[in-house]
Amino acid sequence: MQQGYFITLEGVDGGGKTTQLRRLADAFADCGVPAVCTREPGGTAAAERIRGVVLDKDFTMNARTELLLYLAARAEHVDHVVRPALAAGKVVLCDRFSDSTMVYQGFVRGIPPDQVAALCEFAAQGLRPDLTILLDADPQDLLARRTQRRVEDRLEREGLAFQKQVREGFLALARREPQRICVVDALQTADAVQAEILTAVEKRGILPR
Amino acid sequence: MQQGYFITLEGVDGGGKTTQLRRLADAFADCGVPAVCTREPGGTAAAERIRGVVLDKDFTMNARTELLLYLAARAEHVDHVVRPALAAGKVVLCDRFSDSTMVYQGFVRGIPPDQVAALCEFAAQGLRPDLTILLDADPQDLLARRTQRRVEDRLEREGLAFQKQVREGFLALARREPQRICVVDALQTADAVQAEILTAVEKRGILPR
Repeated sequence: MQQGYFITLEGVDGGGKTTQLRRLADAFADCGVPAVCTREPGGTAAAERIRGVVLDKDFTMNARTELLLYLAARAEHVDHVVRPALAAGKVVLCDRFSDSTMVYQGFVRGIPPDQVAALCEFAAQGLRPDLTILLDADPQDLLARRTQRRVEDRLEREGLAFQKQVREGFLALARREPQRICVVDALQTADAVQAEILTAVEKRGILPR
Repeated sequence: MQQGYFITLEGVDGGGKTTQLRRLADAFADCGVPAVCTREPGGTAAAERIRGVVLDKDFTMNARTELLLYLAARAEHVDHVVRPALAAGKVVLCDRFSDSTMVYQGFVRGIPPDQVAALCEFAAQGLRPDLTILLDADPQDLLARRTQRRVEDRLEREGLAFQKQVREGFLALARREPQRICVVDALQTADAVQAEILTAVEKRGILPR
């Protein structure tokens, strides 16, 4: 693999992205394939600082501000983490990327999708995931799992109607790009979810079968 | 005045923007015209927090990140400070706005001007100054004044060549929009600069003669 491979995990909060990202990283490690695990927003000192602002409960900010902050963090993250790793031939596993922006800031907050898409393009300078795993579930069914978590950030406090809209947004993106976006039922056991993800990755020849 | 009036002050650092903004505000106050003084980046709690990130000496960030952060702060500032004041019929006096973005992130840092312009339009949702005062001077001549200041932020440490480029950028914008942008020689005494600014404001009927 000369140019690396860019895999993103997407979906509503509480769908198990973090767990599955870690498991996928382990699977790559087991095969001796170098993989970099990262997350959005974050990944660099400046981006983490921006993350702190955008996820701060004390601020209510308008949708444009939120969008621009996420993209500011992305520009740092892409230039300093994702692109260098891909250029070094590594697999990059990223918790959330442009699809989240399209869904949260476009589909849900109502900024016109073509504007969000153009801004995403600018921030990432055209970088797009090679494969996206969408961990999909009815948010209602995820509630039990979610309430066990202690940390609750601004986005997570938005409630069920919000999360349902988020889910619809992701599914709409998946319908538009079925080749790139692989929908996985997040309500299965973690092992079953992992097996599906590994199959999708193996199919693309990124992980040896 | 039903719709308010939006005046921005622009120019290189050390040109006396802050002093002149205060003097102009006093002039409005003396005439009983309500004026709001504000600055970019800043103006709201979230925007000030963003300002803290973008001007932090400890971060070197790429041009796109810087641009997106300035615009994130602007979106807040426009929605929560500038537009409400204008809607209330007030004069808004603002230290830096979109022209600074065009110059610093476009002209100097090299992001294509049409992209910067489109992003500015998005962040401010089309809001443009009615009048812009450009405090112009050769940065070399301003050096003596500047070295007396204690606070030196990231932008101010960029050096003379940088500041000269900034000056050229502002002058290029002024040539393009001579009706809106009024160039004032910043090397005059503060009183003389103030007099020129007041004349420009009076000409537009915003301040009674």
